[in-house]
Amino acid sequence: MTDTSSFSVILVEPQLGENIGMVARAMWNCGIRDLRLVNPRDGWPSQPARAACSGAGIVVEAARVYESTSDAIADLNFVLATTARSRDMTKPAFTPEAAAKEMKGRAGTGHNIGVLYGKESSGLDNDDIALADATITVPLNPEFTSLNLAQAVLLLSYEWFKLEDQSVPYELQMPDDTRPANKQELLWLYEHLEQELDNKGFLMVTEKRPIMIRKIRNMLARAQMTEQEVRIYRGMIASLVRTRRPGDPADISED
Amino acid sequence: MTDTSSFSVILVEPQLGENIGMVARAMWNCGIRDLRLVNPRDGWPSQPARAACSGAGIVVEAARVYESTSDAIADLNFVLATTARSRDMTKPAFTPEAAAKEMKGRAGTGHNIGVLYGKESSGLDNDDIALADATITVPLNPEFTSLNLAQAVLLLSYEWFKLEDQSVPYELQMPDDTRPANKQELLWLYEHLEQELDNKGFLMVTEKRPIMIRKIRNMLARAQMTEQEVRIYRGMIASLVRTRRPGDPADISED
Repeated sequence: MTDTSSFSVILVEPQLGENIGMVARAMWNCGIRDLRLVNPRDGWPSQPARAACSGAGIVVEAARVYESTSDAIADLNFVLATTARSRDMTKPAFTPEAAAKEMKGRAGTGHNIGVLYGKESSGLDNDDIALADATITVPLNPEFTSLNLAQAVLLLSYEWFKLEDQSVPYELQMPDDTRPANKQELLWLYEHLEQELDNKGFLMVTEKRPIMIRKIRNMLARAQMTEQEVRIYRGMIASLVRTRRPGDPADISED
Repeated sequence: MTDTSSFSVILVEPQLGENIGMVARAMWNCGIRDLRLVNPRDGWPSQPARAACSGAGIVVEAARVYESTSDAIADLNFVLATTARSRDMTKPAFTPEAAAKEMKGRAGTGHNIGVLYGKESSGLDNDDIALADATITVPLNPEFTSLNLAQAVLLLSYEWFKLEDQSVPYELQMPDDTRPANKQELLWLYEHLEQELDNKGFLMVTEKRPIMIRKIRNMLARAQMTEQEVRIYRGMIASLVRTRRPGDPADISED
């Protein structure tokens, strides 16, 4: 896991313990551990927070409580405030993705980074926003911008997490006991199928035969079969052409 | 708002109405409206779903219920299944970001797109996954991959939303009644400040004067002041150098 010790989430006057727990869960999903609470309305520690964190107790138990936003950010070097889009103040404004990049760059040079989130009902007040270096606004459906606190924390945390995530954007996953078929195995499959189709008269019209074979081969190629699947396919062909008599054993034989 | 009529969210056997409501909220945050429910455990309609959707009633009220996953996806052309990373099946696997791009491309050619999400306790079963064209796995902290249903829907929906979002990644926002200071206004400010500092003897050491002036000008330039802020700043300088006598009026004069 990435070292995210330099990233702090600060909830200013959060109202519901349950939301604090869900914030902790979203943070820890993204490998972020440092949670700071400024005057949580219902006190701290909080049983609803523990119940809602769904296993992210590592974050909830280590959360620290502060009496003011100033206290909570005193040791941080770069602080962003999450807000709805507004022009009340002259302030740099980031999208979550751009904010994550900016924070990652600063964290990489050893600076302590934090993001401020306001209370569920009304967000951050302007005095807290004034303390921050810049704001973050999540772009959303303009007809419906009401984002749950934990959802806001998740979106920003996930953008941060993604910057170091090594996942391959697209891959063909497969079980360990198989591998992609090679082209010889596929050619044998094509020939097997075409032979049986010839036997049954499916490819009888001579001038259409090459076109139909191309369509069939193309369709099968696109399936990106494993060598195991090629064997299943050939088993199906063999089964379909067989004249089965009452009493014959079933022939499902995947190995 | 983007036309997202081609994007469907399918919840297979969701357990809690509250989670369905939170899914609806996350969808509508991202402009997605078509919610399909396969055998919701506690029935439908659901009062907890209505209560939890926080204003996304447009999604909850229009949700449709199906008896099987096959029924729910019958009219769709491309279906992705959300899963934990697994190699049980040979299947293309996307990250949410790559999946959103793939879906957007297909939606752009008129195809109907859907994403399957399994029940909260155990996810999708393999028979449902087998019906899908590919899987999506959200990369997360390997120590804690338990993602709430609505959080999973949000992350994928947000990646979809972002692809057409026009937000500027970074901008200096400011109130409508001001504008960035021009360089002449800033030069007058610098000269005003340097004049007063000279008067007080702050820049007395001749060989250090140019360096100090450069540092001060650089610091002030970085603040990206508005013309209003330049006036506030010059007002502060004027105030600081004034000899105030008892009884003088206060001179805060922001206009």
